[in-house]
Amino acid sequence: MQKVPKGRLNVEEYVAGILKHDRIILSKAITLAESQLEADQILAQEVLTHILPFTGKSIRIGITGAPGVGKSTFIEAFGQYLMQLGKKLAILAIDPSSQLTKGSIMGDKTRMTTLAFHPNTYIRPSPSGKSLGGVAQYTREAILLCEAAGFDIIFIETVGVGQSEVMVYNMVDFFLLLLLAGGGDELQGIKKGIIEMVDGLVITKADGENMKAAQKAKSEYQSALQFFSKTKPNWQPEVLTCSALANEGLEPIWQLMLQFEEQMKQNNFWELQRKNQQVLWMHEIIKNHLEAQFYKKTLVKTLLPSLEQKVFEGETIATKAAWDILNVK
Amino acid sequence: MQKVPKGRLNVEEYVAGILKHDRIILSKAITLAESQLEADQILAQEVLTHILPFTGKSIRIGITGAPGVGKSTFIEAFGQYLMQLGKKLAILAIDPSSQLTKGSIMGDKTRMTTLAFHPNTYIRPSPSGKSLGGVAQYTREAILLCEAAGFDIIFIETVGVGQSEVMVYNMVDFFLLLLLAGGGDELQGIKKGIIEMVDGLVITKADGENMKAAQKAKSEYQSALQFFSKTKPNWQPEVLTCSALANEGLEPIWQLMLQFEEQMKQNNFWELQRKNQQVLWMHEIIKNHLEAQFYKKTLVKTLLPSLEQKVFEGETIATKAAWDILNVK
Repeated sequence: MQKVPKGRLNVEEYVAGILKHDRIILSKAITLAESQLEADQILAQEVLTHILPFTGKSIRIGITGAPGVGKSTFIEAFGQYLMQLGKKLAILAIDPSSQLTKGSIMGDKTRMTTLAFHPNTYIRPSPSGKSLGGVAQYTREAILLCEAAGFDIIFIETVGVGQSEVMVYNMVDFFLLLLLAGGGDELQGIKKGIIEMVDGLVITKADGENMKAAQKAKSEYQSALQFFSKTKPNWQPEVLTCSALANEGLEPIWQLMLQFEEQMKQNNFWELQRKNQQVLWMHEIIKNHLEAQFYKKTLVKTLLPSLEQKVFEGETIATKAAWDILNVK
Repeated sequence: MQKVPKGRLNVEEYVAGILKHDRIILSKAITLAESQLEADQILAQEVLTHILPFTGKSIRIGITGAPGVGKSTFIEAFGQYLMQLGKKLAILAIDPSSQLTKGSIMGDKTRMTTLAFHPNTYIRPSPSGKSLGGVAQYTREAILLCEAAGFDIIFIETVGVGQSEVMVYNMVDFFLLLLLAGGGDELQGIKKGIIEMVDGLVITKADGENMKAAQKAKSEYQSALQFFSKTKPNWQPEVLTCSALANEGLEPIWQLMLQFEEQMKQNNFWELQRKNQQVLWMHEIIKNHLEAQFYKKTLVKTLLPSLEQKVFEGETIATKAAWDILNVK
């Protein structure tokens, strides 16, 4: 039997603390939701069920971009702009590399100097030691907890590679892609399909000598975007430029998000998307669990590598290999 | 106990018939692979295991495009061009709508008048009464059976909507998208992400008054394509135009495919992609099976609708609902 870690509160204490906007209790509740212990999971679900009526009032913004695009500098500048408007901002990360402190948001806690210590900002790293699916699940729960704790803007930050984008896309209202103006094939390094999911696109570092290239990239992307089918009803993704260094172009980005919110609420897509995301999430948890249960079986783990090898080498057909391994007890 | 249907052969008869390029036995073997009966499945896997060494010599070409793009007319014209080159062509369909004869390939068997009766062409409809995942699985097996039966070009045809494209993409060497020149937002109707998977793109109906628009569309798509990351090493997808009516532009399309094959074989990507597709396929079968087993439980079927509704309405959190249903026996 695993011991329940010290420092756990009871349901009422978590709920009351969160609703009083106590950020220490918020942190404890997120830690609870991230825990692998079954007792913690049950407790976390009770807490979440209680705070559910107090969630949903924020705008959930996914922010992605390849390493080097200046994501943390952008978040620092944009976050400060939002602070001036009196907003309360929570920043969550879904970043498989964040455990390695490879320029990810949590290596950034030192870099995001102003934001990290602002009373209206809450920064929470990607939980470590989890699969991407696990990270995504706990991030969804963290969004709800942050909303109940009074944050009205939630950033979910991720890197522009791998599967994490689709996960973030499926938990946010507005999905923003940061890009750097550059010569030639500018989308290299950005995973296929991402540009087709975005609601807005920002060319970063549009200052000094970069200005001209950024303007050119802006018009190129704007014309390329018309070749994509629309992600949302009556919404044509817009391309903007900004300079975190010169503190320029931040207001139009926020205006774009507000315009998006207004538009989507008018045509009722805002609520519909959120509801569908919840149902999708439920089925994702089910699928992840079924697969995890299967692939963690000892005999499956033992037999799979050689079966995969045989299929790879064309020595056995995939169907037969699948049935062989499915029949393992 | 279900009865084994009449007309089943034994393993040796299937294998010998297929390797003698007997198309009646080929058809029977495909029917066997499509069967839901366990005895048939076991027999089919034995047949597939025996013919496996004789597979893989074709070029597998996925062809997609929205309804109205002239897909069957294109396939008829392109197929006839390949007949003149002395090729042996098998045409398979993955088309959820084909059971409804909504302008899909099988409604086309009457329209593909020349091809349908050509001795070097074999046309096989999408199996009916199956899920898309099921269709995809049997199509993969049909590819192998057709290859062993001597067909050196395999078309896998699908419509440009829904999930079927990704499945087709994952079972072919070359993925071709057909598009129609038109005003404005030309990719409407084509599912997001598809244009990023293509190895080649053909603007159809480039004749008469359409000629100018087709040329314009060609150059627009060619420039839009550079904004995507490359799907294959050293391969820049090309945009071509063609007229099935005027029988024009077919040779360059075939040349493009040959050039692709040569290039991919040079850098060893051809084999690598096929091997990876097989391993991916194995895991897909496993996942589909795990989910199917779960979702077909009587109690799951009974409880799921109301749980989904509660999650949709925000009355319960997705995690809790997922765990509740996962605990059902």
